[in-house]
Amino acid sequence: ECVMTVDLLTDRVDFELDRVDPRRVGRKALAVNLSDLAAMGAKPICALISLAPSRSWSVEQVDEFYAGLNRCGSAYGCAIAGGDLSRTLGPSFISVAAMGSVRRGRALKRSGAKPGDVICLTGELGGSRTGLEVLESGSPDRAPHSVGRFLEPVPRLDISSWLSGFRGITSMIDISDGLASELWHLCRESATGCEISSEALPIAEEAKNWALSIGGSVLDYGLYSGEEYELVFTVDGRRIGRFLAESKGLPRISVIGRMVPAGQGMTLSGPGMKKNLEPSGWNHFHKP
Amino acid sequence: ECVMTVDLLTDRVDFELDRVDPRRVGRKALAVNLSDLAAMGAKPICALISLAPSRSWSVEQVDEFYAGLNRCGSAYGCAIAGGDLSRTLGPSFISVAAMGSVRRGRALKRSGAKPGDVICLTGELGGSRTGLEVLESGSPDRAPHSVGRFLEPVPRLDISSWLSGFRGITSMIDISDGLASELWHLCRESATGCEISSEALPIAEEAKNWALSIGGSVLDYGLYSGEEYELVFTVDGRRIGRFLAESKGLPRISVIGRMVPAGQGMTLSGPGMKKNLEPSGWNHFHKP
Repeated sequence: ECVMTVDLLTDRVDFELDRVDPRRVGRKALAVNLSDLAAMGAKPICALISLAPSRSWSVEQVDEFYAGLNRCGSAYGCAIAGGDLSRTLGPSFISVAAMGSVRRGRALKRSGAKPGDVICLTGELGGSRTGLEVLESGSPDRAPHSVGRFLEPVPRLDISSWLSGFRGITSMIDISDGLASELWHLCRESATGCEISSEALPIAEEAKNWALSIGGSVLDYGLYSGEEYELVFTVDGRRIGRFLAESKGLPRISVIGRMVPAGQGMTLSGPGMKKNLEPSGWNHFHKP
Repeated sequence: ECVMTVDLLTDRVDFELDRVDPRRVGRKALAVNLSDLAAMGAKPICALISLAPSRSWSVEQVDEFYAGLNRCGSAYGCAIAGGDLSRTLGPSFISVAAMGSVRRGRALKRSGAKPGDVICLTGELGGSRTGLEVLESGSPDRAPHSVGRFLEPVPRLDISSWLSGFRGITSMIDISDGLASELWHLCRESATGCEISSEALPIAEEAKNWALSIGGSVLDYGLYSGEEYELVFTVDGRRIGRFLAESKGLPRISVIGRMVPAGQGMTLSGPGMKKNLEPSGWNHFHKP
């Protein structure tokens, strides 16, 4: 089966060409789409690129942008198969549409979770927001790993195929708008609630250190850091033992909570604490 | 097999929201993609919409834009399956990516033509450019049919499936950038030249009248009118008799020339005239 996804980036909103190497813009524009394919358990086939560069782009910058796209495409087996080109009198636009394939009936959706399913997460959280903030603070060397995560997100194609092959994964999504926001999508589409354990969230060391150093909330870096491109997914409660056993050799996966009936809403619990989990995150029309 | 296409529209370049009903913008944004699917002989499955409205769009305009998309999608069996939304500080940006299906091995490409193949064209030429010009002149009632063609292009899905089913069509493309420009693409990708008969070009009555009334060249309206969304295709010379016989019941198809060896280039011939056919058309970086 074919799956398809599209993402839109505008200069001054999603990236700032003045500050970021066009190769990185190209790389990231494709990587975020590959992450969407990963979230469905699909393998990339090809991508089509819509580009309307602003008047400030030089031909060299356009070339570098495509070089970044092509390098990323080569790394993950995704052909840059064509696209469309226009002009704009305002800030640049980039839209990437990608197609992937998945074994019939095995595409993972947001809508398959049931109460009792266990919520799992790949990798660590907080790095992307930390990376952006240390870049903005002018001292990127305070969190070099996080800067890399922000500038060069890695789609989790290393683990997504395995996940789509394991019988018992009931839903999946990638974290582009923050964990809390993506959990809200899973709950809404699956008609469930969820309970998340604050202690179980795998928050990156650099994010913890950065949050504490600026007097911020460490937990917020776990729940509300966007552009993480990790995968959050649910495992049928009856299959979780087998899942944990069979996934041992894989990159880091954390159990972070479980699905509950919709009436119980989204909650966050920790030592002596239980509260509603607010599904804030990035929203272009209503900022948190 | 799945095929995929993408098109990009920017305000003030490809459309002007101030002057055009957002429903028409939505309709056209999808129709041009469906024309690309038609050009491959594919049936539409679904489309994903990237929209970054400028600050001047009201919520009602966004709704009307999607209403236009949905109405067009319903008319041609194409689901509006999702997309992405962003903001922009400049002119609006729309990118539509569409997916279609075609029987295995039957997708029509630009690259299959051979010398000796006969060049055919659906419908008539010149209407879209005429429509734009009478709109700009402030007297749209001088060419009402042409205005309709410009504002509401019709993808030739009525005929494309039949064409992809006929064995002997060797290449196909739709006329988004003007006939001469699209012939250039067919010749380049097929490594051929072509010979076009100026008398055979089916130029619309309104386009002829308009061209003559403004002292323009009628032929230019046939060769260089963009956004026509007719299909130009080549038929194996050994199959042309059968093609003409079997296509009799279909909407208008004209034979306009034939493919020749690449060394002969692109030529236009008429009564007592033979000259090079210049592949001019719309190009965002080098205007004709």
